[in-house]
Amino acid sequence: MVNLNLYPQIIQDLLTEIHTRDACGNKNGVESQLIFDTQNHHYLLVDLGWEGKHFTYGTIIHIDIKDNKIWIQRNNTEINLAESLVERGIDKNNIVIGLHSPFMRQFSGYAIN
Amino acid sequence: MVNLNLYPQIIQDLLTEIHTRDACGNKNGVESQLIFDTQNHHYLLVDLGWEGKHFTYGTIIHIDIKDNKIWIQRNNTEINLAESLVERGIDKNNIVIGLHSPFMRQFSGYAIN
Repeated sequence: MVNLNLYPQIIQDLLTEIHTRDACGNKNGVESQLIFDTQNHHYLLVDLGWEGKHFTYGTIIHIDIKDNKIWIQRNNTEINLAESLVERGIDKNNIVIGLHSPFMRQFSGYAIN
Repeated sequence: MVNLNLYPQIIQDLLTEIHTRDACGNKNGVESQLIFDTQNHHYLLVDLGWEGKHFTYGTIIHIDIKDNKIWIQRNNTEINLAESLVERGIDKNNIVIGLHSPFMRQFSGYAIN
């Protein structure tokens, strides 16, 4: 299992890979932003911009670190982020699927909080 | 007019004031997060969390700095962010209301891009 102090870099690497792999850089005016608040540990992937007369705004992924645990707060992809983090050496017990209800989390195999 | 290098702090102060004033710290499990990526200049206020069986996720405010201009990308409040920035000394010509269409921006009195 990797050390806690590597968590921020592992999350940033994962989001950067998803951002690059999905070639979601700039599509017809819609910009894909990697947002890394490394001080308060918020890590986001957000799509926004104008496509003709239509404005798009959507947070695709939002991951936090709170009390030494990784919280998956939003995932608008088909990628299993928790599994991807475990593959990178993060302990299942240090991952909370925040977007699942506290009740559901007990069945996930990950941390409850 | 204030210097460009003060823009990041002015935006952070504004968002921190809104966050504090609206007492949107923690309401029944819903957390209000200030997210400041000071390296890539993305500044957000996001509400998220569980209220009973209901999960809330919403980006309230999103402001960027791009090419020395402030872009208001999202504003889910009744506060006029552009005016608030002007009151703090920011030049109107350095503010883009990104959430208005490029066409509409020419009528706003702010920058087009």
